[in-house]
Amino acid sequence: MKKYPKNDLLIRAAKREPIERTPIWLMRQAGRYMPEYRELRQKAGNFKNFYKDPHLAVQATLLPYHLLGVDALIIFSDILTPLESIGMEFDFKEGEGPVFQNPIKDEKDIHNLKQFDTKDISYVGEIIKQTGKSIDYELPVIGFCGAPFTLAAYMIEGRTSRDFKKTKKFMYQNPTAFKNLLDKLSDMLIEYLNFQIDSGADAVQIFDSWAGYLTPDDYREFALAPIKKIITSIKRNYQPIIHFTKGVAGFFDEMITSGADVYSVDWMIDLKKVKQKLNTKASAQGNLDPIVLYASKETIKKEALKILQKWGKETGHIFNLGHGLMPDMSVENVKFLVDVVKQESIR
Amino acid sequence: MKKYPKNDLLIRAAKREPIERTPIWLMRQAGRYMPEYRELRQKAGNFKNFYKDPHLAVQATLLPYHLLGVDALIIFSDILTPLESIGMEFDFKEGEGPVFQNPIKDEKDIHNLKQFDTKDISYVGEIIKQTGKSIDYELPVIGFCGAPFTLAAYMIEGRTSRDFKKTKKFMYQNPTAFKNLLDKLSDMLIEYLNFQIDSGADAVQIFDSWAGYLTPDDYREFALAPIKKIITSIKRNYQPIIHFTKGVAGFFDEMITSGADVYSVDWMIDLKKVKQKLNTKASAQGNLDPIVLYASKETIKKEALKILQKWGKETGHIFNLGHGLMPDMSVENVKFLVDVVKQESIR
Repeated sequence: MKKYPKNDLLIRAAKREPIERTPIWLMRQAGRYMPEYRELRQKAGNFKNFYKDPHLAVQATLLPYHLLGVDALIIFSDILTPLESIGMEFDFKEGEGPVFQNPIKDEKDIHNLKQFDTKDISYVGEIIKQTGKSIDYELPVIGFCGAPFTLAAYMIEGRTSRDFKKTKKFMYQNPTAFKNLLDKLSDMLIEYLNFQIDSGADAVQIFDSWAGYLTPDDYREFALAPIKKIITSIKRNYQPIIHFTKGVAGFFDEMITSGADVYSVDWMIDLKKVKQKLNTKASAQGNLDPIVLYASKETIKKEALKILQKWGKETGHIFNLGHGLMPDMSVENVKFLVDVVKQESIR
Repeated sequence: MKKYPKNDLLIRAAKREPIERTPIWLMRQAGRYMPEYRELRQKAGNFKNFYKDPHLAVQATLLPYHLLGVDALIIFSDILTPLESIGMEFDFKEGEGPVFQNPIKDEKDIHNLKQFDTKDISYVGEIIKQTGKSIDYELPVIGFCGAPFTLAAYMIEGRTSRDFKKTKKFMYQNPTAFKNLLDKLSDMLIEYLNFQIDSGADAVQIFDSWAGYLTPDDYREFALAPIKKIITSIKRNYQPIIHFTKGVAGFFDEMITSGADVYSVDWMIDLKKVKQKLNTKASAQGNLDPIVLYASKETIKKEALKILQKWGKETGHIFNLGHGLMPDMSVENVKFLVDVVKQESIR
């Protein structure tokens, strides 16, 4: 049986075991804001080659280990990765994000989706294995996936969207077919996350980036239900599950019934309220507004301290942003944030 | 003293007086989805000429009276209208929205803002007067303004934004100057709303479209405080104040201390929860997801009924969307929604 990584602060915080200080990692911590990342990206030629090449992807995953000193490494990959295996073809266009060749239009398209095969994403397993090995299992390696609703939205819109018009129209007009799609995606994600854990992931995060645009009723039915199914079905020893939803303030009470160990929230909800609602039954991750990182170090420190104070000295908090780092951020400021949290959160 | 309009359902719902049925109007009800609106827009030549020409703007304002049968008419105008008077120059670019020539960069720019003069926006008073007269005061005429935080964000970003990076950076780095700007805008908006009420507005709505991107602490300090100041300072007889914030679920408890008569909310918060929290002390407006209007009539009816049922038969609810109508929506579906709500909400 796989053992805890040497620095197991994140695992302990997730399980509400005692911790000496608050663990910190950052969403999109291996990203375009790092010159070293941009070099690797250039070597790869394009984004897909980059995340499919274990050698380059592991180097990207390790950058925050070398440059930031974070307490966990999330593998460099993309939430769309497993969709190629079920027959969805897409490309990443510069400045546009993913564009699908044949977005889902109707029931037939859902019926025609292929069976997921972990062989098609074996490179993800390689990245997890090699990352752990490269650092001699010093830090937890976090695997991840997109949540069923978020993946369904990408598959139906065919690209990112501001209003999810096509997705919601499909959901409202044909809820049975939509649920069928969510079911297929859930089954795929159970296999995918089990595969990541078998490959050595010490934790997995489920990203529900788009569910925040739903009504609370629709959130419960179309976003939360499939996630509950996934969480119930994952085989794991110690590995905590982190559940992230952007824009969750209106249905946080529902979200925290998903069965996850850690709920990752954005900055539009008060961490003190989050703590009260969790009532020692689960942990929280978050929730600095990434925009703070554009400000002065003085401001960064002030805002980081606010968050640490909101949670207090109890265990159960993993410091993170409310959303990912952005390409034009300064590595120096990001590193400063990591240092501040590590220094100021000592028990 | 001005009297209630003949159909005063909206006023009574806002004051929690008995109503025979739920009043309905829709944000952006006079808009590009109407062929008749597009004709008027073409006549005007550009968007600015359109809202500055009382003759054309009144015709636009009246379209939902003739075509939809709503219970209130919001004047056709723009939240940026008063900013020209204080020296901010901007244009509306096709497909891009407003673009400011000289966005606010520093304290000096704030210091140099001119004194607001209602003479510069006398056309807004004309539109209100002529709208009421045209329909022989049958329906309430709603005036409106943008909230200080939202206007400040436009002035600093210089255009719409997805992350409000410049605004938040300014706010974090220079909170005193930012508050000074909010103060100037609040003073302007007090004059502006008083002018609208003096011109005959039966209600005014304050649109805080962007405050939902703040943390709850920053919302309280930078968005809510100036609105409280405005609401306290408006001179009115019966005219209710409607306070709209997009993305408010994380700080709804704070929002409802603003002193407004009606809180207008988006669809990401449960109307039942809203009702409980208001606890008969104020009214609510909302909160259908506009995207529902792309679906079938059956779906529109189902989702509208859900909202009516969540509030129940008590007074205090004004039916509306959670956000504005969109250009590619069908007039037929919009009209269907209005009819359904009017029929199905009879006490």
